[in-house]
Amino acid sequence: MNGGAQPCRLVDQNGFTVATRGRGFSEITRDVAELVAASGVQTGIAQVFTAHTSCSLLICENADPSVRGDLERWMARVVPDGDPMFRHDAEGPDDMPAHIRSILGGVSLAVPVGGGRLRLGTWQGIYLWEHRTHPHQRQVTVTVLGC
Amino acid sequence: MNGGAQPCRLVDQNGFTVATRGRGFSEITRDVAELVAASGVQTGIAQVFTAHTSCSLLICENADPSVRGDLERWMARVVPDGDPMFRHDAEGPDDMPAHIRSILGGVSLAVPVGGGRLRLGTWQGIYLWEHRTHPHQRQVTVTVLGC
Amino acid sequence: MNGGAQPCRLVDQNGFTVATRGRGFSEITRDVAELVAASGVQTGIAQVFTAHTSCSLLICENADPSVRGDLERWMARVVPDGDPMFRHDAEGPDDMPAHIRSILGGVSLAVPVGGGRLRLGTWQGIYLWEHRTHPHQRQVTVTVLGC
Repeated sequence: MNGGAQPCRLVDQNGFTVATRGRGFSEITRDVAELVAASGVQTGIAQVFTAHTSCSLLICENADPSVRGDLERWMARVVPDGDPMFRHDAEGPDDMPAHIRSILGGVSLAVPVGGGRLRLGTWQGIYLWEHRTHPHQRQVTVTVLGC
Repeated sequence: MNGGAQPCRLVDQNGFTVATRGRGFSEITRDVAELVAASGVQTGIAQVFTAHTSCSLLICENADPSVRGDLERWMARVVPDGDPMFRHDAEGPDDMPAHIRSILGGVSLAVPVGGGRLRLGTWQGIYLWEHRTHPHQRQVTVTVLGC
Repeated sequence: MNGGAQPCRLVDQNGFTVATRGRGFSEITRDVAELVAASGVQTGIAQVFTAHTSCSLLICENADPSVRGDLERWMARVVPDGDPMFRHDAEGPDDMPAHIRSILGGVSLAVPVGGGRLRLGTWQGIYLWEHRTHPHQRQVTVTVLGC
């Protein structure tokens, strides 16, 4: 797998910042793909992580924007802003819902790398989902492991 | 850990196709376990990924089939087919629900490898969950990293 | 990345047991951090896994305990104990809800390692979430991959 005496670049870690405009989706597929290409790793995984508790990462259909609209509406029904059940509301009605949405979606995902590229399906895109209503700066770390 | 001068097989990537019969669960534990065994990796992780946006991967109780039945019924209540809230319905009433179910379940998971085997718990099985009502061919990629 | 001739410790796998007191959260950030430090890995990932089907792992806000209280109340509303829809109830009204909660939260997560430490955000903690009402012994496996 390592091609005999060729050097094996085991791990490369890098990152970028996503400036969100409040609740909604930012596609980061290209940002992650560029870090994979720069790593020189041909076969392995790209682990993507965001160091926050009120946004999440996901892999979503990338062709029809109405998919993300429907997803937002569904989430707003299941985890409503300002729900009187929530006691943690110091930062506003979207505070606790943002934490729950972040946990449901997750802040960590991995994508296989093959032939030096992300092996995503045709209709898959990687997105950062901002769950707060106000804009935020979100840090994303990409760790590429492999040879 | 690497056993001195022994060669370290860093990464092995392979895959298989799951032919689903429409909405429901296909156990893939054995398929993943065989790729782990073939990789020669003794200690590390197996990262499992499916390159689609309308099915998902999960680790579920593997003894009582009624668990999967209950899971399907619960999901159908929380994300109902044909919900008038959804605008993305070009492929039918299960189109948008399949995307939401895929995101809730996730398309990427990792299992530790130890002693050359998947270190799953006694009651854990790895499943692909088809969310479309019609049968599909689903690609699964397994990347084994370790020594 | 590997610092020339320096040895590269590719993988380290270890674990610990969490004695839960029934439904609720146990923070395991320090336990995971200690295994990362002991591994000697400077750059890579820590993959955390629990070998059960009725608890889950999550990254959650670590400052205000009311976040976890709200999360528990929200989950109890969405996946109610004793729901008559559930057929799998041999171990009690919390049996099937625990499986669904486990699947929603997931039993596998990965955190980047940089500078020899977990690269968590300021407000992120790693938690094991017990979903059964009775206390359990939960096994957690941490696999650190990198150099």
